[in-house]
Amino acid sequence: MTYCLGILTSAGLVMAADSRTNAGVDYVSTHQKLFDFSLPGDRVILLCTSGNLAVTQSIVTLLKRDIKAQEAVNLHTLPSLYEVAQYIGDKTRQIQERDRSWLEKDRIDFKCTFLLGGQIQGEEPELYMLYSQGNCIQASKETTFLQIGEAKYGKPILDRVLNFDTSLEAAAKCALLSIDSTMKSNISVGPPINLVMYEADSFKIRYELRLDRGAPYLAQIRKFWEGYLNEAFERMPNIDWDQSQDSP
Amino acid sequence: MTYCLGILTSAGLVMAADSRTNAGVDYVSTHQKLFDFSLPGDRVILLCTSGNLAVTQSIVTLLKRDIKAQEAVNLHTLPSLYEVAQYIGDKTRQIQERDRSWLEKDRIDFKCTFLLGGQIQGEEPELYMLYSQGNCIQASKETTFLQIGEAKYGKPILDRVLNFDTSLEAAAKCALLSIDSTMKSNISVGPPINLVMYEADSFKIRYELRLDRGAPYLAQIRKFWEGYLNEAFERMPNIDWDQSQDSP
Repeated sequence: MTYCLGILTSAGLVMAADSRTNAGVDYVSTHQKLFDFSLPGDRVILLCTSGNLAVTQSIVTLLKRDIKAQEAVNLHTLPSLYEVAQYIGDKTRQIQERDRSWLEKDRIDFKCTFLLGGQIQGEEPELYMLYSQGNCIQASKETTFLQIGEAKYGKPILDRVLNFDTSLEAAAKCALLSIDSTMKSNISVGPPINLVMYEADSFKIRYELRLDRGAPYLAQIRKFWEGYLNEAFERMPNIDWDQSQDSP
Repeated sequence: MTYCLGILTSAGLVMAADSRTNAGVDYVSTHQKLFDFSLPGDRVILLCTSGNLAVTQSIVTLLKRDIKAQEAVNLHTLPSLYEVAQYIGDKTRQIQERDRSWLEKDRIDFKCTFLLGGQIQGEEPELYMLYSQGNCIQASKETTFLQIGEAKYGKPILDRVLNFDTSLEAAAKCALLSIDSTMKSNISVGPPINLVMYEADSFKIRYELRLDRGAPYLAQIRKFWEGYLNEAFERMPNIDWDQSQDSP
């Protein structure tokens, strides 16, 4: 499985991904799921992938190939992130057209989902979720985060903490805690974790990190959070069984 | 959807359930999902239900009917909770046998799952999860909680807080927060919430509550928790981008 999330705030963008993939419980491996296609100074383009690994890898390969071959249309030439989303949707359809019937024959899940975040000169930062069908939806002030893959475990912390005016540093911290909560509750999501924080209008990735399995910083983050969370839990009053029954 | 959970600790048992059901987004209603079949002084038997409502209601009806008809074998005569689990499994198979093919024809999900918790004189408190197929698994010191229905959102708080030696009051508080987290993140789970706390060897339910939609106590619990959780979040250090990159 996979867990990736993107957060759009008034100050910029945070994107994060785990790196665990599995085909059955006895074939667990590590694959990068956060890709940086930025052209510093002109555009920042970040892509997170989930779903069938052969499908997503093929799509990423096509995206890279078009840049390398300097095709007229590629991630570095398109004028808006919306058009980038459409273009990646076209690549998705192309791969689905090629592979889907062969995967379906053997009942293999051919689906894939992407998070696309970034900013192109002349535009605001944007965040999209792209579906297997090649279409997409966009994050907004009301819905500031999008998730793909094993998204449920890590959602409560996002729901309780984030809004569009959350600081970028806090959003990054929240993303890391969301991934850590997921890793704690589900073994199909695991390190290395990739995390990127992008400041709006900088057109350059200045903050990124990769936390490998056993990274002391990751262990420290988890220890801090478990401690603070347990303290918060201790502070909660015990259930008032009588008073509660009086409720209407 | 549904969310029910049971927690087994050294001091007893906590069971909790929401009450929202839906058949499509335009047919949302309220149905009790936590049933008390206790015989005070002799046994405590609590049952939580999830899955196809017609199936679970039929099974609960059969259980009640056998008690009322004073059948030789019923929830009040069986000598152990394990045998109670087997008996409910038999009822499940009976209903599945009757209805399954008719539901399958119209691609209606016929599955159902139960949590069964309690204690019968001469035995320790126990907690079981019963599957659609009529078989079951049991909670243990290592796996102290079991969940059915929309279980993922509410799992992180349980994973971080609970163990077999957690006090019963803390387990009840944790169950309520787990349900509240799920309600906050998923509209298919909703009030009234039923919560029962059973003290081992008391053979009587002394602590139970029902929290209706809009109950001031529920709003207060949520407000406290969001406040404490946000404080815990504030206390977390911001991400140290440089140090993290030094990690091995």
